[in-house]
Amino acid sequence: MHQSELFSKTTKNLPEGEESKNAQLLIKGGFVNKSSAGVYSILPLGLKVLNKINQIIREEMNALGAEELLMPSLIHKKYWEQSKRWEADIIYKTKDLDYGLGWTHEEVITAIAAHSINSYKDLPKAVYQIQTKFRAEPRAQAGLLRGREFLMKDLYSFHADEKDLNNYYQKVIKAYKKILDRLCLKARLAEAGGGAFTKEFTHEFQVLNPAGEDTVLYCDQCDWAQNREISKMEHGDKCPACKKGSVKMYRGIEVANVFKLGTKFSEAFNLNYLDKNGKKNLVVMGSYGIGPTRIMGTLVEDNYDEKGILWPDAVAPYKVHLVLLGEDKKVKKEADEVYKILIGHFGESEVLYDERNASAGEKLNDADLLGIPWRIIASDKTAKLKKVELKRRSEKEIKFVSEKQLSKLIK
Amino acid sequence: MHQSELFSKTTKNLPEGEESKNAQLLIKGGFVNKSSAGVYSILPLGLKVLNKINQIIREEMNALGAEELLMPSLIHKKYWEQSKRWEADIIYKTKDLDYGLGWTHEEVITAIAAHSINSYKDLPKAVYQIQTKFRAEPRAQAGLLRGREFLMKDLYSFHADEKDLNNYYQKVIKAYKKILDRLCLKARLAEAGGGAFTKEFTHEFQVLNPAGEDTVLYCDQCDWAQNREISKMEHGDKCPACKKGSVKMYRGIEVANVFKLGTKFSEAFNLNYLDKNGKKNLVVMGSYGIGPTRIMGTLVEDNYDEKGILWPDAVAPYKVHLVLLGEDKKVKKEADEVYKILIGHFGESEVLYDERNASAGEKLNDADLLGIPWRIIASDKTAKLKKVELKRRSEKEIKFVSEKQLSKLIK
Repeated sequence: MHQSELFSKTTKNLPEGEESKNAQLLIKGGFVNKSSAGVYSILPLGLKVLNKINQIIREEMNALGAEELLMPSLIHKKYWEQSKRWEADIIYKTKDLDYGLGWTHEEVITAIAAHSINSYKDLPKAVYQIQTKFRAEPRAQAGLLRGREFLMKDLYSFHADEKDLNNYYQKVIKAYKKILDRLCLKARLAEAGGGAFTKEFTHEFQVLNPAGEDTVLYCDQCDWAQNREISKMEHGDKCPACKKGSVKMYRGIEVANVFKLGTKFSEAFNLNYLDKNGKKNLVVMGSYGIGPTRIMGTLVEDNYDEKGILWPDAVAPYKVHLVLLGEDKKVKKEADEVYKILIGHFGESEVLYDERNASAGEKLNDADLLGIPWRIIASDKTAKLKKVELKRRSEKEIKFVSEKQLSKLIK
Repeated sequence: MHQSELFSKTTKNLPEGEESKNAQLLIKGGFVNKSSAGVYSILPLGLKVLNKINQIIREEMNALGAEELLMPSLIHKKYWEQSKRWEADIIYKTKDLDYGLGWTHEEVITAIAAHSINSYKDLPKAVYQIQTKFRAEPRAQAGLLRGREFLMKDLYSFHADEKDLNNYYQKVIKAYKKILDRLCLKARLAEAGGGAFTKEFTHEFQVLNPAGEDTVLYCDQCDWAQNREISKMEHGDKCPACKKGSVKMYRGIEVANVFKLGTKFSEAFNLNYLDKNGKKNLVVMGSYGIGPTRIMGTLVEDNYDEKGILWPDAVAPYKVHLVLLGEDKKVKKEADEVYKILIGHFGESEVLYDERNASAGEKLNDADLLGIPWRIIASDKTAKLKKVELKRRSEKEIKFVSEKQLSKLIK
């Protein structure tokens, strides 16, 4: 892609009152545009990142044997009334009070499942969607970490009994770990409260980060971690699990959660199945969320320096950023050649070519702001050396390499 | 995919008051589930169809040089007030009257473009999204043809002058023709009214079909067509264009439209650019819509018989439907082999294998209902012949062919 043709531009102007670092950097880089508090448009550069996040999630959900579907946002109040959740403050309701905007889809999926599940032969089943959610957040000042409108991957599973649910629950935890690994996000699996549904703990994946709105207690030597809301431990206590490590306290961003719903919704929506003996039983359910837009914000909070974002390779909008400096026609011609070689190797969608008429300072600042992992500079200086300049966004070292070496060095 | 593992099932039960043929057949086949009037969940089988439609649209939009982005649904009233559209009856508003749900995105995209477009060097530009829209339709009885919530691909273009807009407008018409061709939808390009924005005609792509809610006048010999709302012609008149053909009148489903917005929105949102002489000008805009969920409904209205849907190859949820009849273990083993061969040839995502324990009648009825283009039967009878039975959903002829011939015959 030629950078001169990109729809979005970098900017120095931030909307009034935009305090969160992730939103500031995403706006400056032209990844998102703020529509109103807690509501963002995802611009083409940002959508490239978001689609890569979604694709990783989708692959791991499909590997779990879950099928993708798409439920509506406009959910008639009859659904919410049936589960006694119509009064939740979090729901945006339409003016006529006929609909609530989906902030979670247990009601709708349970009603649908009642058409699909009748017998033990139909179990287990799992379905997911990657879909827009709405929550009437009173405070929406954390950028993409807490939106009034945001993208959510929600997975729902259906089981004959608790044992099968428990098995699947562990499988989803493994799948979520794999997703977060692929996204280069280090997260702690923390126990948390079960809300109205269950007396058991549920689990959250918490990324320890100063921008987090939760507080997590965790062991510095083993895997033990709890959300402060339910923990009896304090900073400095001995770890209750390994009895060796020390309990630390830090802020966390909840990027995913897993939840045993039990039979709460199958009871409300009459979701039964006949077992082998012809006896009617309630279906046992689980629900599991992971937030792609929140992950995008978390990746920024986790990967930036004073100059801009440092995207992990797996989700970067482009793999390589080729920057032409100066106006020499010969250098331009050589850079055009390098661009051809790069798109031959990495595909057109993975190479951004800054061929704009702009100063070196502006171009290099933009490159740092955009945070593409590999930067290649073609300039008078590199042309004289018959090489180009190669640099990782995350490193200081600069190498002068021949065009032929590029495809070997860039992984 | 093994059919026994599919989340959705076929059903004979239709929700009360569901009168539209497309919704009836899509519900019966397990492609969609009705959530409330005009609101449907797209089930896994339906999402496979919808994704294929979206992919065709996306490819042609990208070929036009348009970049994809994603705008929000929760649009603050300040946007609608600025364009004087806040009072439109079609908008769902939130209870607090802070937001309207996006039914179209001229306001939001123009406000965004004001950050990206400042100079003639930034023009032309085009962006699109495939995104959920909401319209408070008083009557929502046409299934996927007129939803209260539906998917829309909306493209917006930005130009220095009318001439450039006119050029692009013709390019979009060509791209839309290509999309509809690939979807096997025969549509007439009809002139229609410009509403509040323009005194010129706009254009709609109308699929002539008894389920259509519009009325189209068209020539039986040339390309001339008009929406009845603006036409001065009547059924039986001589064609005003070719002067040879006769004007016919029929119902049409509007599957796409193209619209010259002129400077209405750039004026409201201060979207200007500096020309080569440093003079400030308003950006000239176009907007172009095509509805993936409406297209899905139209494809059904256009392709069904008394037994169910006949999906065109380009959008069928699966290319091949392998149906095992009877409970003979040897036949089952052979069918398993055929399944392996088929997924080797066409990919796992293109083959549905009905290995359920169900009667031949149920299985064959379901196959007709699902409407997958190629049906292959493995049974006692075919096993004795050392062949399988091959049939196109749209044809009556049955062939007995060897496994080796399958990949040659199925295109």
